[in-house]
Amino acid sequence: MFYRTKTLMTLIDPRPISGFKEFLPEEQLILERMKRVIIKNFELYGFSPIETAAAEREEVLIAKAGENTKLIYSLSKLERANQDTGETQDMALRFDLTVPLARFVAQNYGKLAFPFRRYQIQKVWRGERAQKGRFREFYQCDIDVVGDGKLGLLNDAEIPAVIYGIFSEMEIGPFQIRINNRRVLNGLLEYLKIPLEYDDGQSTMNIIDKAEKVGIEKTKEMLTSLAGASETQADALIEVLTYKGSTDETIKWLASKQYGELYKQGVNELTEVMNIVRTLGVPENACVIDLSIARGLDYYTGTVYETTLLDNPQFGSVCSGGRYDDLASNYIDRKLPGVGISIGLTRLLSALLDKGIVEPNASTPSQVIIFQMDPVLRSDYFALAAELRKAGIKTEVYPEETKIDKQSKYALKKGVPFGIFLDQKRKDEGVCTVRDFGSRNEEKVQIKDVPEYF
Amino acid sequence: MFYRTKTLMTLIDPRPISGFKEFLPEEQLILERMKRVIIKNFELYGFSPIETAAAEREEVLIAKAGENTKLIYSLSKLERANQDTGETQDMALRFDLTVPLARFVAQNYGKLAFPFRRYQIQKVWRGERAQKGRFREFYQCDIDVVGDGKLGLLNDAEIPAVIYGIFSEMEIGPFQIRINNRRVLNGLLEYLKIPLEYDDGQSTMNIIDKAEKVGIEKTKEMLTSLAGASETQADALIEVLTYKGSTDETIKWLASKQYGELYKQGVNELTEVMNIVRTLGVPENACVIDLSIARGLDYYTGTVYETTLLDNPQFGSVCSGGRYDDLASNYIDRKLPGVGISIGLTRLLSALLDKGIVEPNASTPSQVIIFQMDPVLRSDYFALAAELRKAGIKTEVYPEETKIDKQSKYALKKGVPFGIFLDQKRKDEGVCTVRDFGSRNEEKVQIKDVPEYF
Repeated sequence: MFYRTKTLMTLIDPRPISGFKEFLPEEQLILERMKRVIIKNFELYGFSPIETAAAEREEVLIAKAGENTKLIYSLSKLERANQDTGETQDMALRFDLTVPLARFVAQNYGKLAFPFRRYQIQKVWRGERAQKGRFREFYQCDIDVVGDGKLGLLNDAEIPAVIYGIFSEMEIGPFQIRINNRRVLNGLLEYLKIPLEYDDGQSTMNIIDKAEKVGIEKTKEMLTSLAGASETQADALIEVLTYKGSTDETIKWLASKQYGELYKQGVNELTEVMNIVRTLGVPENACVIDLSIARGLDYYTGTVYETTLLDNPQFGSVCSGGRYDDLASNYIDRKLPGVGISIGLTRLLSALLDKGIVEPNASTPSQVIIFQMDPVLRSDYFALAAELRKAGIKTEVYPEETKIDKQSKYALKKGVPFGIFLDQKRKDEGVCTVRDFGSRNEEKVQIKDVPEYF
Repeated sequence: MFYRTKTLMTLIDPRPISGFKEFLPEEQLILERMKRVIIKNFELYGFSPIETAAAEREEVLIAKAGENTKLIYSLSKLERANQDTGETQDMALRFDLTVPLARFVAQNYGKLAFPFRRYQIQKVWRGERAQKGRFREFYQCDIDVVGDGKLGLLNDAEIPAVIYGIFSEMEIGPFQIRINNRRVLNGLLEYLKIPLEYDDGQSTMNIIDKAEKVGIEKTKEMLTSLAGASETQADALIEVLTYKGSTDETIKWLASKQYGELYKQGVNELTEVMNIVRTLGVPENACVIDLSIARGLDYYTGTVYETTLLDNPQFGSVCSGGRYDDLASNYIDRKLPGVGISIGLTRLLSALLDKGIVEPNASTPSQVIIFQMDPVLRSDYFALAAELRKAGIKTEVYPEETKIDKQSKYALKKGVPFGIFLDQKRKDEGVCTVRDFGSRNEEKVQIKDVPEYF
């Protein structure tokens, strides 16, 4: 029922909206491949897909958004005069996938099997100023395991195995999953009597979170001048944050320190998680303890994760998350602890393309193109294409009868790997020519054997 | 940076927004399978994926929305005070995938290879009153081939082959693709001197479009009383609309009528398209000419398609589209003709679930669950799970050490097909028990052979 305004005289500039990243087909094909790797690994661990509505009621979002309420896009009808469709005023776009998960779990509590393992790959929207690497619309690829009342540490340990599977298979260079436990840090702060918050709501954990970026000197200064730590307190904390050693050494070193009960509980959890991670087949150097990992978010309570591309640490963490005690207490009178991670796929692919780490090689999924050399043979081209598709081979017939030069140019521009040439002479011999555009080799193939050839 | 408001005392009702359909995991798994069938077939014909931004600039949408402007959701920042992020006032959510395609093609004209074959599977938003089968957020699955200047009829003919591939593979019952050509109808109206529009903008094509639904009598009445046709004119038109015959008979019958040049061109196009459709291996009864198919949209100019589920005609067309002359004239000074179709996937799955035509059987992709029978064997469970996953088998280890009854109940609730039982006694024998929850059969399998067993 939508139609074009016929009388329009001037052209509308088709410029995109800044921060709403769109990929060209050759880039989108890479994104789809990455998505498939992610989904495959999520499903190998038994995570189930859900998708939630783009919009939530505003009160649902605001309850969890805190100071970031200002990033939320709200929806309204373009033509205010026509308000016959019910509740539109209080709808807004999700800014992450965790708030929708919480609402979804609370809403469908009776229908879900717990522990509830879900994956969700959808876009989220944040009204920030767009800049390099920061988008206003972007993909998040999340998994979470949500328990009913309690949730065992096996779940924390499976997460690095999933991450390891994904980033190994993506082949975008060496990476390292870095694990810590918030109880280690919280216990330490408690023991050292460094306040968790300063200046009425600023989190000390945020200072720790930024330590790697700003360096030891600056961190120490912030701890003493902002968070009110003494020199001795700051030094003790920094000793832990900067400790380097193998997993076994780190665990041993941590266990040798007497920093109170909460700290000890954190060390025990971290130890158990690392033990299971090994059993799950994750290599030693792919998943390490890093005591400087804090994650800014207030709601993490146990294990926390970050993932670094070792050749490109400037990308920041490409996959992060952690354990939380209480997913949905705003919506349901039940304690639902969980653990999860998120991959920012739009940002990741965008950075990989910018750095030339992944490079588009084709703007089409087509594996073969059949050229139209002779109008008389049109049915042969279509029949051959049908045979190839039946064998699962992605096939195009060049869609016009035109000069073969133009057809070849189209195939090369799109990066189709193989071309099939069939004219009357070849047909009489029962063969066609298969050209490999990469190696520039040509081969005569019996027409009936073409599907098998690929 | 998002955190929970700690002081909140009352629970927020986690009710969803009406018309924003969300599926449970067991339903979403079906949706994902349907999506995979659709993508597979789109790619078999060489269509390339794109995704466009959820939001367009309002002038881009309004230029194409016509009277449906009132369905558009516009975006604004929730907190108006903070307007530091640039252009937010003129953004609105897309209501279809065709307008974004037009804008995308115009914007990236120099970078695309023409004919440009794209598929796009994304959600769209329409601010309508939600009701059964009508959603405010829903998936569209679109393909279009867009030519630069001109576009051959092969493209029109490939469309039914794609549709045929998809709906055969979905196994949701018998279906029929119904084809017509707007030039046949437009030519006929022109020849019969029935006006194309009446009452200042109402399209006569809409009366034809509804003929099947409202019946012959009512159609005739509307043609005479509304569109100003005489009895004779209306009868001549209705004779064509209601003609039934095989493809060959219909083509012959159409060719025998002398209704002027435009009509003749339409008949010739329809004939050629049907000939190619056959060559592409689409069975005779799966794709038929139906002269009553008009499609309401003004911008269709040639071939038009609808697809009916024969056992469930009340679903309406589950896949529709057509040929248009001019995709992007609002944005670019180039004639870009195209042909495409759209599947309304949310609506389709929703109807199939309501009617019990598809039924969820599991809320997880997991093929196997390994039960935790003995804490001492924990490493064995994890190691076996790792082996299974390496072989591509979707595997869960029950994530707690708890009573085996509770573990079994979880597996049954989720519909995991197989369970693996391993205790110390079995381990000593080098075997585990594999239970098929469907047939209730159990089998002893050598532990090392388990991956191969599946």
